[in-house]
Amino acid sequence: MPGVQLGSGVQRLRPEPPEELPAQENLLLAAAYVSDAQYNRNVPFQTSPQAIRLYCFYNHWTMRVVTYLFICVDLSLALFEKPALFPLPFVATALAEVLCLAAFSARLVHFAKVTPQMVFWKDTKNICIMVTIVVTLIDLIIYGSLETVYIHSIRWTRALRPVFLINFPESRQIRRAFRSIRNTLPDILYVFLLFLFSVLMFSLMALKLFGDRGLKTAEGAPYFTNILEIVFELYVLVTTANNPDVMMPAYNLSWWYSLYFITYIIINTYIFMSVFLAVVYNNYRKHLKNEIRTLVYLKRHKMIEAFDILKVKVGTEFVVKEATWKQLAKAVAPDISSSHLELLLRISDEGQQGFVDKMNFLRLADLLNIQVVTVNLRRHPLEAWVPRVYQSSLSLLVQRVVRHRVFVWAYDVIILINAIFIALDEKHPFISYAEWLFLALYIIEILLKLYTYEPRAYFGRKQFWNWFDTLIIIAALVATTANATVQSARKYNSRQILDIVLILRILRLLRVIISIERFRVIVTTLINIGPTMLTFGGLVFVVYYAFAVIGMEVFHGKVRFFDPNFTSPDALVCGNPALKGSAFARDRYCKNNFNDLASSFVVLMELTVVNQWHVLAGGFALVTHQAAKLYFILFHIVVVILIVNIFIAFILEAFFVAYSLGKSEIETAIEKKIQELGVGIQEEDVQDWKLTGNMGTRDSTFSGNDGDNTKASKGLYFRIASKKYRTVDALLQRMFESEIAANEEGPSLEEILSFSPSDIYPKNPNFENSA
Amino acid sequence: MPGVQLGSGVQRLRPEPPEELPAQENLLLAAAYVSDAQYNRNVPFQTSPQAIRLYCFYNHWTMRVVTYLFICVDLSLALFEKPALFPLPFVATALAEVLCLAAFSARLVHFAKVTPQMVFWKDTKNICIMVTIVVTLIDLIIYGSLETVYIHSIRWTRALRPVFLINFPESRQIRRAFRSIRNTLPDILYVFLLFLFSVLMFSLMALKLFGDRGLKTAEGAPYFTNILEIVFELYVLVTTANNPDVMMPAYNLSWWYSLYFITYIIINTYIFMSVFLAVVYNNYRKHLKNEIRTLVYLKRHKMIEAFDILKVKVGTEFVVKEATWKQLAKAVAPDISSSHLELLLRISDEGQQGFVDKMNFLRLADLLNIQVVTVNLRRHPLEAWVPRVYQSSLSLLVQRVVRHRVFVWAYDVIILINAIFIALDEKHPFISYAEWLFLALYIIEILLKLYTYEPRAYFGRKQFWNWFDTLIIIAALVATTANATVQSARKYNSRQILDIVLILRILRLLRVIISIERFRVIVTTLINIGPTMLTFGGLVFVVYYAFAVIGMEVFHGKVRFFDPNFTSPDALVCGNPALKGSAFARDRYCKNNFNDLASSFVVLMELTVVNQWHVLAGGFALVTHQAAKLYFILFHIVVVILIVNIFIAFILEAFFVAYSLGKSEIETAIEKKIQELGVGIQEEDVQDWKLTGNMGTRDSTFSGNDGDNTKASKGLYFRIASKKYRTVDALLQRMFESEIAANEEGPSLEEILSFSPSDIYPKNPNFENSA
Repeated sequence: MPGVQLGSGVQRLRPEPPEELPAQENLLLAAAYVSDAQYNRNVPFQTSPQAIRLYCFYNHWTMRVVTYLFICVDLSLALFEKPALFPLPFVATALAEVLCLAAFSARLVHFAKVTPQMVFWKDTKNICIMVTIVVTLIDLIIYGSLETVYIHSIRWTRALRPVFLINFPESRQIRRAFRSIRNTLPDILYVFLLFLFSVLMFSLMALKLFGDRGLKTAEGAPYFTNILEIVFELYVLVTTANNPDVMMPAYNLSWWYSLYFITYIIINTYIFMSVFLAVVYNNYRKHLKNEIRTLVYLKRHKMIEAFDILKVKVGTEFVVKEATWKQLAKAVAPDISSSHLELLLRISDEGQQGFVDKMNFLRLADLLNIQVVTVNLRRHPLEAWVPRVYQSSLSLLVQRVVRHRVFVWAYDVIILINAIFIALDEKHPFISYAEWLFLALYIIEILLKLYTYEPRAYFGRKQFWNWFDTLIIIAALVATTANATVQSARKYNSRQILDIVLILRILRLLRVIISIERFRVIVTTLINIGPTMLTFGGLVFVVYYAFAVIGMEVFHGKVRFFDPNFTSPDALVCGNPALKGSAFARDRYCKNNFNDLASSFVVLMELTVVNQWHVLAGGFALVTHQAAKLYFILFHIVVVILIVNIFIAFILEAFFVAYSLGKSEIETAIEKKIQELGVGIQEEDVQDWKLTGNMGTRDSTFSGNDGDNTKASKGLYFRIASKKYRTVDALLQRMFESEIAANEEGPSLEEILSFSPSDIYPKNPNFENSA
Repeated sequence: MPGVQLGSGVQRLRPEPPEELPAQENLLLAAAYVSDAQYNRNVPFQTSPQAIRLYCFYNHWTMRVVTYLFICVDLSLALFEKPALFPLPFVATALAEVLCLAAFSARLVHFAKVTPQMVFWKDTKNICIMVTIVVTLIDLIIYGSLETVYIHSIRWTRALRPVFLINFPESRQIRRAFRSIRNTLPDILYVFLLFLFSVLMFSLMALKLFGDRGLKTAEGAPYFTNILEIVFELYVLVTTANNPDVMMPAYNLSWWYSLYFITYIIINTYIFMSVFLAVVYNNYRKHLKNEIRTLVYLKRHKMIEAFDILKVKVGTEFVVKEATWKQLAKAVAPDISSSHLELLLRISDEGQQGFVDKMNFLRLADLLNIQVVTVNLRRHPLEAWVPRVYQSSLSLLVQRVVRHRVFVWAYDVIILINAIFIALDEKHPFISYAEWLFLALYIIEILLKLYTYEPRAYFGRKQFWNWFDTLIIIAALVATTANATVQSARKYNSRQILDIVLILRILRLLRVIISIERFRVIVTTLINIGPTMLTFGGLVFVVYYAFAVIGMEVFHGKVRFFDPNFTSPDALVCGNPALKGSAFARDRYCKNNFNDLASSFVVLMELTVVNQWHVLAGGFALVTHQAAKLYFILFHIVVVILIVNIFIAFILEAFFVAYSLGKSEIETAIEKKIQELGVGIQEEDVQDWKLTGNMGTRDSTFSGNDGDNTKASKGLYFRIASKKYRTVDALLQRMFESEIAANEEGPSLEEILSFSPSDIYPKNPNFENSA
């Protein structure tokens, strides 16, 4: 597990008993450990005071942002290099690239200063980055010197650029997704070979059954006469992309031959593809749990390390003094408010004895991770300013109306009417006036709500839907006004502004979801797993980038796009006579080419969706060589069979974990404490997770919850904004933590690092967890 | 849970203390209970001696076979009714149908005699059958009388025929699959509505963005101008069937519009479809476990019932006398061999005390379910007949060679060479001679193996691959000889025989799988879950049948197929001018029609595979009405979104259960006993289940295991042929049984029948079983 190599070097390198170090340096070291535990960083670092300061600087957010900025610049160079979307001279892009490489080298040197030498040189990630930097430089020099003598060569190291995105220690998530794939490979390989064997057997059978009958396809080409073509056609049939077409000539001959294809589809499409998913999912699950377990133990280990540095003996047990604890917390989280710090201390030092015992100390990282929002329950500003008016009977009636369910329903009806108006032809003047009416109604709604509810609470951090609502309306107002101004000033519609207006107008309809609870629950769940889905976005991006760069080198300029109105014979065959009469040209796929990065990404997206991919593959094979199909088959295996299945496995797992947690309502000790101390308002959106279960429970929105809030007396309150628990990872971590005893030391570092996924399975599975 | 309504009536209806009944009748009643427990039948029955005899007769296999025969006849009538594959006059099919209905009525009357009145009339299954019989009769009469006056009406009750297949108590598995679907519906409905909402929003957006730009599709039709067409096109896009095509006109206009389609695909195709799978899988899992738990408790309940009837007091506890026990076992399984019975008794009455205690008695049903095969370990017949020759050094050498791994490898090489020869052109005389050589080599291999291994063991019940091997070779020999004879006699190739020869020749290559262990493991797992997959076959058949009947009524004769060589203008538009210029006609889909049952099934299969379904839907909409597309959309929702997802959920679950069981090797008490008594040889193929785990362990084939077998001394042995444990069901049942204490009574019947799926979830999920 290359991602979690830590510490084994640390222990050996740390100078002897920490009591001899001055207190400030101890605190710094402990703070570094706690911070690492808080953010699950597992980078081993040297423990000399200087190295720790360097390490803190290394972890500083500005440094990370700068690194990612350079990675972005490096990756986006493909937009400006030939074949370019926005062409720049070679000198410019080469200079930018060298600059990026320099930045990467600096970052690496910084890392080498921080981490023990041994660990640094053993880490494949660092070696990878170094090799890539050197290779890229060599490639740049060769390409540049050849360019000066007008020989055009290939910048093949461009495909290696995603290496930087993957291998810097910050991209843990993407690396883990890659590890998932790598772990799955051995198991999936045998299924894949068996699947290939099956395809080959069926191909042989097809050759023998249909080869010498002189059948023709719908396009008049010979049917199933060449074994290589048959293998390709049948591989395409597994993806269902050529489904009835490939069968039709044989089926037209005799009904019985359809049985051959039906058998083939059942075995290869349905059964084998499901088995692929099962294998991928099983591995994903197994390794996910193993990694989570390792992470949790490593975290505990770091906290014990920090405790051992700061502990002093009071009575019979070792504890950490309150003052030291406060200093530490301030060092780890400099921005912490004093009231928040006081809350944490009250939780950690329950008996107010002036010190924190080991069990409570170990929780510090988790405590800091709980985003406690201080809620200021205040009266409505209008109530403070003009109490007489705000409390008048008319004003109270307005407030009651706005809080009533019927108010929500009335606006749902208005939205539906609006939807009908949008669908109607907008040329009619009456309808374009109606648009202003609707806008006015929505603005009135927002104003009424702001009148009724406390504005700062209404625009609270977690009030996603209120923010969405208001922003959409304001944007629509601005865009509609801009459009009207342009229209009246120049008597024409600006297409861009109009497009934006139209999209905003339709997005507004999304508000219906807010008022139907079950919909909101589903959407909230999806939004919650959104951040982790972005990891897959990163994974897909890396693979796309590599394939796009290769594709641009191989297929660049072979297919050209002409304006659709331009009907010269050249335009009909995408500028390449080899495509004459091909399905590629007939379907007008000319714009699906590899002539720049953006187009390449669109083509790869189409290949991911699978449909018609054989037409694209066939087209590019015609303009180059039949072997080009291998590029497309490889892409299908990597993206569709591996990545898409892992994505599906992730969604399944996210839903199941969310479901089983929603049912049981595990509370960590910390949250219980916050509840006990009576200073917390229970996290509101916990119910969101109960997606599949009791859908009936009323999900607390702002409007729904408002009644409860008013019950509580006014003043300063803490609310747990436990966003951190929203990922599958965090959920699993929390579940696992609730299982290990609070004062358990956990296995030794060596044991932790050698966990194998099979350990995690119980020796005797029971009925509950078997499936 | 309509499938498991039992017993609550039984208890009330059974006449008072059973001691008063004569012993024979008691035995009969107990035997009925045990038999029900053995086969998991949950039909409540009356307990008068006469009713029990009727019940035994009802359960007799001949009665069940006859019922299924009539169901088959009834379903196959669609082949002979207009529009028919093999037309028969209406009178003939009507007569056959009345006969079937009479048989169903008789079966139902029989059932009514057996089961208590109250239970019978409460059961929706019976009501369903009765209503269907009556309705079908009425429909027959109306149709028949209208036919006599030459008015053609619609035989709409034909779509109801699968009701009989589902609702007879024997089709428990299919009913359960249907229940799975029904249970999933409420949860999936909201996701589906949200999905529809999303599609509608995007449709509105598409109408506004692209509607008034005057764009044209590749076929020259207006692009995205009609909201209904847009909704259909975007629904098709979710299934990916029209993927790049639907985007191309907008994409050709501007690169930016591709973002609209990419967003749409990510949200609706990837995320929503995965959520559908997650919801279906979650429900499937939940309800599966609940049903299994109910089944296990019901089984125990019936066994306790049987015990209470037969018990006598010996000392302080109630027991069943050995003689009674034997009589009972004989009554439940009349074909049981005396040695098998003796084995079961030794297991049940360990101390040989002359009676069986309650705990051991409750196991009887499971004991009878374990298929114990008596293995007769004998010497090779040749060794008995000609010991001198068989034990000669040459003969021993041959045997050693055959047992050696190299022998297997040599034949693998031969198979691969054979594959190359098959791929080559067979016109060449040398290659057709080579075919005979290969056949000879294979026959020699089988003979050598029969020489080395004991023939009865080689063709043992569980030696699937040996049987497969031999049958394929013999069939190939027969077919090749037949083909050669026909060829030399009449100087032409019979195409049918040649096809068979070719298929057999290629199937032979499957033998390579046998010698690669990992392949064999995967294939064995797939074969093991095969029977349950057939349940899904039944499910799909029922849905296909109903849709096919409706499709034949609506689309019959609208599209006609002409011989491909016949190129009249009529043939090019499938005999329907409405199809002129349509994609349906251009792709030559004329044979994809609803003109008979077989063709309809092929069309429905194509729709299940999804690709090009919009072309089929569009074609049939052109020849009838645009509303016909609803038929195709409905089919997609039912079959692809529901059934295919449940099928995938089943495969995932089967793999996971198999995996977690393979790791732990749960042994039931019974098997332990058999092992302890030293009369059993451990089930050989247990390892087959360790699919994903330790693939490395050598899977015991015949050749591999032979060495072990010879170690055991000769004589009569029992081998557990635990085929019963090969389904997910049985595996889960076994896991659940191993958890409930052996002497636990279980909850009361009322409690069992009111189990809800949510009970099964642990209150505090732990890390292991959460995901």
